Amino acid sequence: MADIRGRIGAGRLAPNDRLPSIRRLAVELSVSPSTVVEAYDRLSAEGLIRPRPGSGFFVTEAGRTPAPLVRLDPPRAPEVDPFWVARQALDADPGTSKPGCGWLPPDWMPTALLHAGMRNVLRQATSLTTDYGPSRGSAGLRRFVETRLRQQSITLSEDQVLLAGSATQALDLACRLLLRPGDRVIVDDPCYFNFQTLLRAHQAIAIPVPYTENGPDIAAFEAAVARETPRLYLTNSGLHNPTGATLSPQVAFQLLGIVARSDMLVVEDDIFSDFEPEPAITLATLDGLSRVIRIGSFSKTISASLRTGFIAADPERIRLLTDLQVAIQFGGPSQVATEAIQSVLSSGGYRKYLEQLHRRLDTERRATATRLGDLGIHPVLMPRGGPYLWCRMPDGVSSTALAQAALPQGVVLAPGNVFSPSLSADGFMRFNVSHMGDIRPFRVLERALKTMG
Amino acid sequence: MADIRGRIGAGRLAPNDRLPSIRRLAVELSVSPSTVVEAYDRLSAEGLIRPRPGSGFFVTEAGRTPAPLVRLDPPRAPEVDPFWVARQALDADPGTSKPGCGWLPPDWMPTALLHAGMRNVLRQATSLTTDYGPSRGSAGLRRFVETRLRQQSITLSEDQVLLAGSATQALDLACRLLLRPGDRVIVDDPCYFNFQTLLRAHQAIAIPVPYTENGPDIAAFEAAVARETPRLYLTNSGLHNPTGATLSPQVAFQLLGIVARSDMLVVEDDIFSDFEPEPAITLATLDGLSRVIRIGSFSKTISASLRTGFIAADPERIRLLTDLQVAIQFGGPSQVATEAIQSVLSSGGYRKYLEQLHRRLDTERRATATRLGDLGIHPVLMPRGGPYLWCRMPDGVSSTALAQAALPQGVVLAPGNVFSPSLSADGFMRFNVSHMGDIRPFRVLERALKTMG
Repeated sequence: MADIRGRIGAGRLAPNDRLPSIRRLAVELSVSPSTVVEAYDRLSAEGLIRPRPGSGFFVTEAGRTPAPLVRLDPPRAPEVDPFWVARQALDADPGTSKPGCGWLPPDWMPTALLHAGMRNVLRQATSLTTDYGPSRGSAGLRRFVETRLRQQSITLSEDQVLLAGSATQALDLACRLLLRPGDRVIVDDPCYFNFQTLLRAHQAIAIPVPYTENGPDIAAFEAAVARETPRLYLTNSGLHNPTGATLSPQVAFQLLGIVARSDMLVVEDDIFSDFEPEPAITLATLDGLSRVIRIGSFSKTISASLRTGFIAADPERIRLLTDLQVAIQFGGPSQVATEAIQSVLSSGGYRKYLEQLHRRLDTERRATATRLGDLGIHPVLMPRGGPYLWCRMPDGVSSTALAQAALPQGVVLAPGNVFSPSLSADGFMRFNVSHMGDIRPFRVLERALKTMG
Repeated sequence: MADIRGRIGAGRLAPNDRLPSIRRLAVELSVSPSTVVEAYDRLSAEGLIRPRPGSGFFVTEAGRTPAPLVRLDPPRAPEVDPFWVARQALDADPGTSKPGCGWLPPDWMPTALLHAGMRNVLRQATSLTTDYGPSRGSAGLRRFVETRLRQQSITLSEDQVLLAGSATQALDLACRLLLRPGDRVIVDDPCYFNFQTLLRAHQAIAIPVPYTENGPDIAAFEAAVARETPRLYLTNSGLHNPTGATLSPQVAFQLLGIVARSDMLVVEDDIFSDFEPEPAITLATLDGLSRVIRIGSFSKTISASLRTGFIAADPERIRLLTDLQVAIQFGGPSQVATEAIQSVLSSGGYRKYLEQLHRRLDTERRATATRLGDLGIHPVLMPRGGPYLWCRMPDGVSSTALAQAALPQGVVLAPGNVFSPSLSADGFMRFNVSHMGDIRPFRVLERALKTMG
């Protein structure tokens, strides 16, 4: 029963497909034919399959699994499924070392400021802790986001920001508004792995364009736009995930020119802006929210538990996104989250925390690069900020094999191919330097490389 | 410019549609033709429209608004848009009276227990307040949900529950997994208004079936299944929203028989279960999560700010839903929320709070029914629990007109048609008795009814 359920769940058996004959499955699974007969009978009773007299058993509509997420075509080995890192990192046992994860360790986060913010919420009106939030999120935090965007030279009026549950939820909202099944979306190669799973969930087609140390390869970008007439370009244009590269103003300008000559839009996920040593030139800086939809959050530098993200876009899109958020979430983000975050942001301590964080990351980045260098693993570039180092493996070493060897030893790594829609990054790996402070990942890497060499 | 943007936003002008001629729009808006020329020029510069020499201006693809939410066909007057109540209730000024909203007032909520729970979280490991939650939600709260479902006679194994951000998000996840554009979904008439907006967001077609005091009209349900081959039946089968009716075991049994003979599934949103004086017979009770997907939350009786919902379904669907949640949300619900809620649930105080809440609602329900009766507004039935009274208006009174008259006087009401996919409930209104404790709504109703009479 589990075998057939698995085949249906994975989409290998679709509604109206015929099941293997009883004899064949019995041989295949090394069980007796009567076991298969009983399994088929029970699955029929459940309604998942149905006998057709004289022609065998068939999958019913109830066995349909229309989730776009499971239709991985061409099928990929589980080791390069973009979910791999997310699953391993989110569901790791306590004590696991996670240089593959995308966030800072708890003891790097501004816990004292956050807890003070939460205690502050507990002292205020009880409606904050019990009631739904306003549909666009708290006015106070929205004002704060507006000011911050204006500091990044993005002009906007007061009806251009919507608060959402997180940057991921904001991205999902934007995709729901803008995409239809079959739409093409340009993504960077490599890119944040969840962009791929998100697009798959929207039944959109990811069109990879190589990313360079200055931004996307402009010739390849232009060719892809001409060839595919994409609906969107989805990117992190501040500190790029996973490479840590920074978009140059020249590339940004050329790219927006190509975008303006087509009918496409840009969704720019700028969640690493608080890791920037100075405000970056992003696509929204040049475009001013006409063709660019800007997304951000506070999950990376304040809390990934009390999460809030935001979308900045033209007022009409914000109105539509607000309705959409009510439909799929009812109300804006938790007021406990928005108030606590606003409390952290408006404290003088947050600025100091960021300065300290930048210094600490600079130190760890250099130290990690040196120690990885001793193992023959070299950063492709030195980012100007943020937690990531995108590194080239020693010749002939598969980062996927390395990550699989490290996992049973309690170390979660992020092999290059989870970030590469074209699966061309098996010779690369992303390291989160904030998780490289202890000796364990280096020991595990050293041992695994020796075995492979 | 605002006028044209509005037409495009509302879908009245689609890509490749020709804009009104300059002369015609100038007359229509009582402005000079040169004003229209300038507006069209600016909109062209923005890329929203484009001139075609000799044939006028046309909407470009950039003006496309594919959000299913805005394609209201046939167009509805704003007053009966299912979003109406949600918007008014979520974004009301402080001090507004909200008998139209779906939740309890802050001073009815178990604030002391909740705040104790939050303080408890602040004393625990900092990872709870800073880190992402596990992909299926905290193990502790999942165990709690499993136990509760077993107490409701629903048998399940330990991989059949997924925690989500809220019941609304859980519903959205289930719809994403199960629905494709154009799928038909049976809903109750009347039903929770957000079911309609949610289905519209999924481009699914709501098929209304009349709801009776014992559940859906079985003959109409059977006919709709035969006629429409629906993919789903979406319902609150515990205390029904908005009517407060309770599904009878006989109707539940007949309904599941019809479901079993078709290829459809049931999504059962049971968010009012903690308002039940005793566990109700629901569809999942009889079906045991084979064709039923059960959804619930704690937002109504613990907190709508620290929200957590859950889905119980067969293990394979839970696996797919977990991946989907990672794609669109990254990680499970906030650990601050799950830990605080678990803390409330496991305190002896919660049981006492519920007993007190039931008594208080019983008292308010009777008092509200009496006072509404004096105005000629009569409950269609007396629910066995919960905050709602579904009432018939005096003859000839439109509940929509009444709600619109009450709004400027600071009272948000819930006119019947927002709940009715067939728009056949203008003679009904839903009252939330927990918001009827002060005299204001009654005064406003009395005055408005006099003006209308």
